[in-house]
Amino acid sequence: MKVYRFDRPGSLEHLTLHDEATPEPERGEVLLRVRASSLNYRDIAMIHGTYLRGQQTGLIPLSDAAGEILAVGKGVTDFKVGDRVINTFHPRWYGGDPPSTLGSESYGSHRDGWLTELKVVSQEAVIAAPPDLSFEEAATLPCAALTAWTSLTGLRALRPGQTVLTQGSGGVSVFAVQLARLFGARVIATTSSAEKAARLKALGADEVINYVETPAWGERVRELTEGRGVDRVLEVGGAGTLAQSIKAVASRGEIALIGFLASDTVDLGFNDLFRSGGIFYRISVGHRAGLRDLVRAITASGLKPVIDTVFPFERALDAWRHFDDRAFMGKVVISH
Amino acid sequence: MKVYRFDRPGSLEHLTLHDEATPEPERGEVLLRVRASSLNYRDIAMIHGTYLRGQQTGLIPLSDAAGEILAVGKGVTDFKVGDRVINTFHPRWYGGDPPSTLGSESYGSHRDGWLTELKVVSQEAVIAAPPDLSFEEAATLPCAALTAWTSLTGLRALRPGQTVLTQGSGGVSVFAVQLARLFGARVIATTSSAEKAARLKALGADEVINYVETPAWGERVRELTEGRGVDRVLEVGGAGTLAQSIKAVASRGEIALIGFLASDTVDLGFNDLFRSGGIFYRISVGHRAGLRDLVRAITASGLKPVIDTVFPFERALDAWRHFDDRAFMGKVVISH
Amino acid sequence: MKVYRFDRPGSLEHLTLHDEATPEPERGEVLLRVRASSLNYRDIAMIHGTYLRGQQTGLIPLSDAAGEILAVGKGVTDFKVGDRVINTFHPRWYGGDPPSTLGSESYGSHRDGWLTELKVVSQEAVIAAPPDLSFEEAATLPCAALTAWTSLTGLRALRPGQTVLTQGSGGVSVFAVQLARLFGARVIATTSSAEKAARLKALGADEVINYVETPAWGERVRELTEGRGVDRVLEVGGAGTLAQSIKAVASRGEIALIGFLASDTVDLGFNDLFRSGGIFYRISVGHRAGLRDLVRAITASGLKPVIDTVFPFERALDAWRHFDDRAFMGKVVISH
Amino acid sequence: MKVYRFDRPGSLEHLTLHDEATPEPERGEVLLRVRASSLNYRDIAMIHGTYLRGQQTGLIPLSDAAGEILAVGKGVTDFKVGDRVINTFHPRWYGGDPPSTLGSESYGSHRDGWLTELKVVSQEAVIAAPPDLSFEEAATLPCAALTAWTSLTGLRALRPGQTVLTQGSGGVSVFAVQLARLFGARVIATTSSAEKAARLKALGADEVINYVETPAWGERVRELTEGRGVDRVLEVGGAGTLAQSIKAVASRGEIALIGFLASDTVDLGFNDLFRSGGIFYRISVGHRAGLRDLVRAITASGLKPVIDTVFPFERALDAWRHFDDRAFMGKVVISH
Repeated sequence: MKVYRFDRPGSLEHLTLHDEATPEPERGEVLLRVRASSLNYRDIAMIHGTYLRGQQTGLIPLSDAAGEILAVGKGVTDFKVGDRVINTFHPRWYGGDPPSTLGSESYGSHRDGWLTELKVVSQEAVIAAPPDLSFEEAATLPCAALTAWTSLTGLRALRPGQTVLTQGSGGVSVFAVQLARLFGARVIATTSSAEKAARLKALGADEVINYVETPAWGERVRELTEGRGVDRVLEVGGAGTLAQSIKAVASRGEIALIGFLASDTVDLGFNDLFRSGGIFYRISVGHRAGLRDLVRAITASGLKPVIDTVFPFERALDAWRHFDDRAFMGKVVISH
Repeated sequence: MKVYRFDRPGSLEHLTLHDEATPEPERGEVLLRVRASSLNYRDIAMIHGTYLRGQQTGLIPLSDAAGEILAVGKGVTDFKVGDRVINTFHPRWYGGDPPSTLGSESYGSHRDGWLTELKVVSQEAVIAAPPDLSFEEAATLPCAALTAWTSLTGLRALRPGQTVLTQGSGGVSVFAVQLARLFGARVIATTSSAEKAARLKALGADEVINYVETPAWGERVRELTEGRGVDRVLEVGGAGTLAQSIKAVASRGEIALIGFLASDTVDLGFNDLFRSGGIFYRISVGHRAGLRDLVRAITASGLKPVIDTVFPFERALDAWRHFDDRAFMGKVVISH
Repeated sequence: MKVYRFDRPGSLEHLTLHDEATPEPERGEVLLRVRASSLNYRDIAMIHGTYLRGQQTGLIPLSDAAGEILAVGKGVTDFKVGDRVINTFHPRWYGGDPPSTLGSESYGSHRDGWLTELKVVSQEAVIAAPPDLSFEEAATLPCAALTAWTSLTGLRALRPGQTVLTQGSGGVSVFAVQLARLFGARVIATTSSAEKAARLKALGADEVINYVETPAWGERVRELTEGRGVDRVLEVGGAGTLAQSIKAVASRGEIALIGFLASDTVDLGFNDLFRSGGIFYRISVGHRAGLRDLVRAITASGLKPVIDTVFPFERALDAWRHFDDRAFMGKVVISH
Repeated sequence: MKVYRFDRPGSLEHLTLHDEATPEPERGEVLLRVRASSLNYRDIAMIHGTYLRGQQTGLIPLSDAAGEILAVGKGVTDFKVGDRVINTFHPRWYGGDPPSTLGSESYGSHRDGWLTELKVVSQEAVIAAPPDLSFEEAATLPCAALTAWTSLTGLRALRPGQTVLTQGSGGVSVFAVQLARLFGARVIATTSSAEKAARLKALGADEVINYVETPAWGERVRELTEGRGVDRVLEVGGAGTLAQSIKAVASRGEIALIGFLASDTVDLGFNDLFRSGGIFYRISVGHRAGLRDLVRAITASGLKPVIDTVFPFERALDAWRHFDDRAFMGKVVISH
């Protein structure tokens, strides 16, 4: 089978194609024919060597995939040959609080990922794919869509009548706009261009603020919420946006800390944190039970993931280049 | 001012009109010009003397109203003259768990209710009415809509992709159909006629089951949910429907016990309760914070309450007669 | 290796000793030397053929064990040879809501259990044993102690100042008395004899009611709580006790439905359920994350499980006989 | 009646005694004979003009009191003459999420407080005092004890086996040490002297760290929790301690932001917040339902508040001076 391995950080040239032996499923495991995978910011950060959580070399990259079951090991009861599945981002986080091993078992950084033709994993590490989505569409869900879903369900699930703030038009934020509508929430999105603003509105954003024209957009968000502030922020910008997000959040509103887009240059005073009255916590994508809930919501609603471009497996490196240009909206996918 | 008082149970004839002195607001209180009120099953039960929680005689009936502020007492900061408001069903349940006084301070049964031209209450016992609703529409919210909202937010708020079961076309159930859509949930409704089925579908029900044709509708609900069962039941039928609801509910699904429509003739075995795997709890309408959340959701969504008929204040007894015929859908309202 | 298999229901004579080949751990699995196991009501019910959830024949019985790791399969990171572990009751319920497979993968009824010298399971199906407990003590935790823990954490964890009701002196109830003290809760226990009452008090019960002398103990519980009722009931008696439990529970108190001790003869009216104001739900033992939390609590508190009798592996049938006599308190253990 | 009013900030000399008319209770109100009051950091900050939330001049100071009912207004059902009560810190926060008026109705800063002989408030603004506490003891509860309780119940109530970090020996922290034991939690406290360390241990702290000797105490806390970190931090130090608290907190541990002891000089990077994996939120003392729960817990456990000194009403200014010296442990009380 063909796989890509990332020999060392620093350049995309170190991501090279290999021919390897077909793996065998052991007890409780399944063998997948991977049909599509997708990229996330972490995959770019690993190329640049800026991934926060540490990374090992020589691994197969990518955390997200969709495929079909080619074979099952002994004792597998949940799946049969031919089933269409997607993988979970964290192979061993099934529900409830995250296990202590969460940070040391990630695909691409700590174990082989999904940019491969075939792969063996535990049956606990995959779930049934949404029946109405193509493999390319289904491959967008494990990281970006689940991160948005986990943020919207949050400590308390978003309720109809509440307001969400999304930032930009990356994978997580675009899913957040689409999913927030299912929760009956009003969406305020930030973006940098009129063209993207129009697309975000078409996807469901009620209000879009151009953060280039309105750098103090936190105030603007307060105006749009009659001084109350938003009930949830999907904070993907990190240090570059948190100061505005703090201005934008309602008392007891939740700020889901997702991102590491910007470097850690802007500081934050204790009193800013305190006065905001918000609830701040990190999102680590989400667990298997959450992914199942998300798939149910997608199936019930007919939601379609926004795919920017699909690259063939042989041109996988172009997917990285396209992603790195940052001129995309939604998800960048590789078809295997 | 004119008020109706219900001199004793047993007949609608004992509900008579009186002329009384105008009350004065004391510190922290507001004087309201009541503009509309609405009926609920409890108001019928009190006429028939079958209200479960006990009732005193000589009181002004009705628990739900909308009106405008005519005067405010000292120290009132939340409202000013001219504000449009609705009352809370429980005048002293503000949020969190119910106070121990909950059952002994209800309008109509334990203290004077809202079938009056003028009324003084604490500023804590009213909230701002939804700006886009008429007084007649707003008067439908305090009991029926809040009961539906409390059931849908439940122990854990309903999520997109989950399924709700509603029963019939009374006030609570019709609101539940409309509100469940805001939560992104799928709605399965039961009803007794093709005509009502059509109206429930128009309001948002995804599936409607005719319980006359399909008395074992619990099984049908399971089929419609691929064997899984529904995630929430708004149980308004009581003993007459609970056996089917138990068949219809998913493991860890919530059964919100609301109603006392049917008498208590059908019994329930422990094992039925146990095997269902459901979570059973009583809904006592809801608290002030919930009503505010509901108003936000209604305002954000543009939801319009379904009013069956509006009767003028002078013909208030006809509202009871119409309600008692049970041939209505949604809410029966009195315009003051 | 030596194992017991239960060839068919109806008599303890069908539980026979076999000599079988040593199993090998595959990827992600561990081989255990089982050192102790313990009995629960379900193991008795399976002998009598009254187990509610269905049972297969020819399986190794028992759901609870403690042992040490003899060998690990490829890719096992959580454990190493020599580690002391206990198993989880549900091998694939890791946290959050239960998986749909919950009822069809139970040890003893649907898959081979723990009355064996050696056993291979997934590393996900065991956790580290409490360091201060013997194997015999640790083997009491997977079902009975976790059931008590799950009930006490409930929908909302019991708080200091709240009151718990326990029934009798079986494994779950004795653990509940001990654990409730850790939550700062007051414990009211029921029992049938002065001798057991004394032992329950010594373990931490604040009040003990003799249900033989006071069959209407629900009223007595209300008196002991100044009319308020208890905040939690661990309902192990089923149909035989639920009517009293409903009288004993506070508004918004939780009734954790655990048991099937009594047959399903006493019925329950809808209004009983409704009027109680309680929250009713079934406890299905609990998940792996809960077992870890329980082990932490046991370790931090120094709590010691109450063991009635320990039988050697060769006399395992005597453990069943002793359990069936019902003259024990706490847990019946088998030392392997 | 005699009252103290704080004419303007800047000096304790502006806190002067006045003779005023006795107030009358209106409908729903009660007249109290105040018997004791207590000080909190906010009362000191108001003198120095450093109170964060703004303050009006000419008001009666103090937010916490205990007293007895002298008279009741019309319609008061919860209390009768002679009842012993304590006040709620927020007169209109009854349960659930805080009302939007929370910050603009505080005693001492926005409305008259409790350093008075007599006072009229709504019956909703007081609750029954714990029967076993003196007025002086009961007067310590409304702010400091409830802040500790709200932090320990948190987003999810602390469970047996979890670990809490407290800072210093002010009112909130001392209550936190005492109350955390009721939750079955292990307590790690920081302090500045061996003498205080000994007293904290006597009150229930399992470990005490001297932050003068160990300024990088965050690391030490991690060692004491086997690398895991604490499950809850009661962060009273603000900018001066948050950096260490972030090092000390477990993944998904809660950091309750309480204090403003130190000025806002130390900054915080986004990545510090993100990497910690903690959940950060502000505590605004707590609501009436929480205070009732706290009183139940205190009554059930026999917990006695730690009072440093009691000053007579005539020497109230000395209470401020003593508090400002910061050489106290627990609470400073005024006996009226």
